[in-house]
Amino acid sequence: MGSYDKKIEVFFNPRSIAVIGASRNPRKVGYQILYNLLKSGFKGRVYPINPAADKILGLKAYPSILKVPDDVDLAVVAIPAPKVPSVVDEAGRKGVKGVIVISGGFKEIGGEGAKLEEELVKIVRKYGMRLIGPNCIGVYVPSTGVSTMFITRERMGMPGPGPIAFLSQSGAFGIAVLDWAAMRGMGISKFVSLGNKADVDEVELLYYLEQDPETHVITLYIEGIEHGRGREFMKALREVTPSKPVIVLKAGRTEAGARAVSSHTGSLAGSDIVYDAALRQSGAIRAYGMEELFDMAMALALQPPARGPRVAILTAGGGSGVMATDAAVDLGLKVPRLSDKTVEKLRRVLLPFASPYNPVDVTGGASDDHMLEALEILMKSGEVDAIIWIPYFMLPGFTDAFAVNFANLVREINRELDTPIPVVGAATGGEYTWKLAYEAEERGIPMYLSVERAAKAVWALYKYGSWLRKCGTFEEYLEKWRKTRLL
Amino acid sequence: MGSYDKKIEVFFNPRSIAVIGASRNPRKVGYQILYNLLKSGFKGRVYPINPAADKILGLKAYPSILKVPDDVDLAVVAIPAPKVPSVVDEAGRKGVKGVIVISGGFKEIGGEGAKLEEELVKIVRKYGMRLIGPNCIGVYVPSTGVSTMFITRERMGMPGPGPIAFLSQSGAFGIAVLDWAAMRGMGISKFVSLGNKADVDEVELLYYLEQDPETHVITLYIEGIEHGRGREFMKALREVTPSKPVIVLKAGRTEAGARAVSSHTGSLAGSDIVYDAALRQSGAIRAYGMEELFDMAMALALQPPARGPRVAILTAGGGSGVMATDAAVDLGLKVPRLSDKTVEKLRRVLLPFASPYNPVDVTGGASDDHMLEALEILMKSGEVDAIIWIPYFMLPGFTDAFAVNFANLVREINRELDTPIPVVGAATGGEYTWKLAYEAEERGIPMYLSVERAAKAVWALYKYGSWLRKCGTFEEYLEKWRKTRLL
Repeated sequence: MGSYDKKIEVFFNPRSIAVIGASRNPRKVGYQILYNLLKSGFKGRVYPINPAADKILGLKAYPSILKVPDDVDLAVVAIPAPKVPSVVDEAGRKGVKGVIVISGGFKEIGGEGAKLEEELVKIVRKYGMRLIGPNCIGVYVPSTGVSTMFITRERMGMPGPGPIAFLSQSGAFGIAVLDWAAMRGMGISKFVSLGNKADVDEVELLYYLEQDPETHVITLYIEGIEHGRGREFMKALREVTPSKPVIVLKAGRTEAGARAVSSHTGSLAGSDIVYDAALRQSGAIRAYGMEELFDMAMALALQPPARGPRVAILTAGGGSGVMATDAAVDLGLKVPRLSDKTVEKLRRVLLPFASPYNPVDVTGGASDDHMLEALEILMKSGEVDAIIWIPYFMLPGFTDAFAVNFANLVREINRELDTPIPVVGAATGGEYTWKLAYEAEERGIPMYLSVERAAKAVWALYKYGSWLRKCGTFEEYLEKWRKTRLL
Repeated sequence: MGSYDKKIEVFFNPRSIAVIGASRNPRKVGYQILYNLLKSGFKGRVYPINPAADKILGLKAYPSILKVPDDVDLAVVAIPAPKVPSVVDEAGRKGVKGVIVISGGFKEIGGEGAKLEEELVKIVRKYGMRLIGPNCIGVYVPSTGVSTMFITRERMGMPGPGPIAFLSQSGAFGIAVLDWAAMRGMGISKFVSLGNKADVDEVELLYYLEQDPETHVITLYIEGIEHGRGREFMKALREVTPSKPVIVLKAGRTEAGARAVSSHTGSLAGSDIVYDAALRQSGAIRAYGMEELFDMAMALALQPPARGPRVAILTAGGGSGVMATDAAVDLGLKVPRLSDKTVEKLRRVLLPFASPYNPVDVTGGASDDHMLEALEILMKSGEVDAIIWIPYFMLPGFTDAFAVNFANLVREINRELDTPIPVVGAATGGEYTWKLAYEAEERGIPMYLSVERAAKAVWALYKYGSWLRKCGTFEEYLEKWRKTRLL
């Protein structure tokens, strides 16, 4: 197991935070950071630092961090770049443990900025502090209320706590994802915008998140790994993935994309063939887009890995069953014929015109019990490794309690089974459908808008299951999964 | 130009509708059909037919269609299969022009059902009527209020009128898509559930929709084409696609999927290689999933085709620009370097740290004008054929009017240009972002949740543009596009 500096815990759970550059002007970043921090439910002490204000948002302001009467764990810095080194030096003298520098104007602009960044790092090292940034949007931790987000609340939603950690090399993409996650109902454990990575980078955060009990899945958006850190990054992935899934969205895959990377973060995107091989060998799952990244993360956060590639499709609509089959097979999964014995069992509990093969189509005339009984037969058949559930909640035979009852039954059966069977749902539809879909999701079944996305989610569960088996940690992972997610 | 029987217009715009099997019991299909029909704003006369009721939902009921005092254009039949032939015979005697048989229990169950279907077709032919179904969910036309949907309103939303026609071989998938479209805000011109296709099928409806001024894009979900109709289907596609885009989601592509098709609709899924070649040669665009189908349809409905593969990416977030570049290049599009002249023009209007290359990154500090000016330079550069716009509405520099102003400017510039430049947007984010995204979409810019989906939409515009050029109808299509969609 890799190690990390225990000090970085201060970024996620400080007792006190100073906001250097806090402002009374709502149009300033320093106002919004303070406002969001207070709104996020942070329980520790908060100190606005501003030489020209007595009070900001009802809090006493201090002209310098050195004037704060108590200890300060974390300093968030949002002032023009040239002034950053001196205030960070003051933070060091004050005994601050962690500094998040939001301000841009450092290495990303080259020349003077690069020198300024070197100076900043020197100061941070001198005092034994740790640094996130500069040129980033910082950190968001729903469970502790730590937030350095500076978009106004009117324009951005903040997601609640949940099992998914997200590290992003792009600040704007980070904001967009958090805002979308809030609307989607996807919970976040830790979000970190990495910025210029002058000190803390992906490598150390991977080790930190591996140990973080709130985080069940780690997602990363990266454009490039700093020169000389590639080996450590791959080592970290290799060490983390046997116990926690890591999904990587690596941008700049194409020649034109790599060119775009160099004008964005100045990173070298590197050869994609090299990245791809390295990611594969290290057990990271690769995503090729935003929806894919989080679709797979939701599945891995909520459901156990699949022991094999055999998928049963349980549907109330024949067409969706066909499309789900196509999508699963496209991804290298199998949609096997069921044994005569299982077909017979299914036939006995289903309607006369239902299809007891795979896909199992309970038909539009079905009621809750038809699907619940079919579910149990499939999960206990020993013939499949995962299930794609296509409920069609709007059909008249289903009750309003269908989603809850189904999700509860999945959990109940998985408590009994030696190898739990992952179940994911596909719910194409509107408001009523998604009301019920969220009810299922709250009870552990990840739900997707289309069968294609559900199939990709199952693929991720299969892919990760295969990796765990290769690492010899499948049983150990299941054991932990049972303890943490089958309560 | 292909022809169709003018009588089929009766399915979409009848003066009067009889609902045979209308019921007073809200749990019955015959109640819900009547209820939905009344709720959908159908302006013509409606006659419930039920031998055991005097009044249903406030309307006088008749024991037989023969007892209705006025003409009846369309009959919707929702009674058990064995009784269907006799009521359809009555409809024939009454002079009904079109019959929609919702009831199942025909060819799809084989044996007796197949015989019943033959009998039904004979009767229909005898009276010169036309038939949709049996075993379908019928028709939905938001503009005329014709609806035969039987899911309760509490569980299903109905989309408003719009430019997209959807023909579905799967009833359940049709319901799911309409319900989703209502939530998504995607407008529908005509929806037809094809069912067993005993009479009216895709071929005739393609010709009908080609002539339908409400329909700008035709989408199809098919599992198989009836034996002997393949040639006509491909001919219809070849004849329709030079003037109207057709997007096909063909399920049962894989071996396991084809097996699922045969137990679903009893269709032969056929060799996918044959389908794929045939679809390609006929100019249909193929979709491989629900989201892809309608993402592409929205683009083709709202934006002009692209003359070539050169894409400019106009973004406020660098990371999204990189991902959009990757996604576009993956699809065979080009993200070309811009000329020095254009770069210089962009540099003059953008912020100092913005990137004037392609992707053009106005950066998170930008305001409306930066992006609007960059848009105009790009659209008028002659160096790109399409634009992916990644606005990041939540950024503090943008005003609440940004989306509206941007969409209006696109339209304004496209009025001037010889070849209009299609623009699609990617808006990852939450509620505020989607409020503005919908404002842009209402003004003609299709908006997507991710850059990957926006790239696929541009690909469809390029693909269709290439087809039009091959057919020699590009200019003619643009001419019509200008008249109908640049008002």
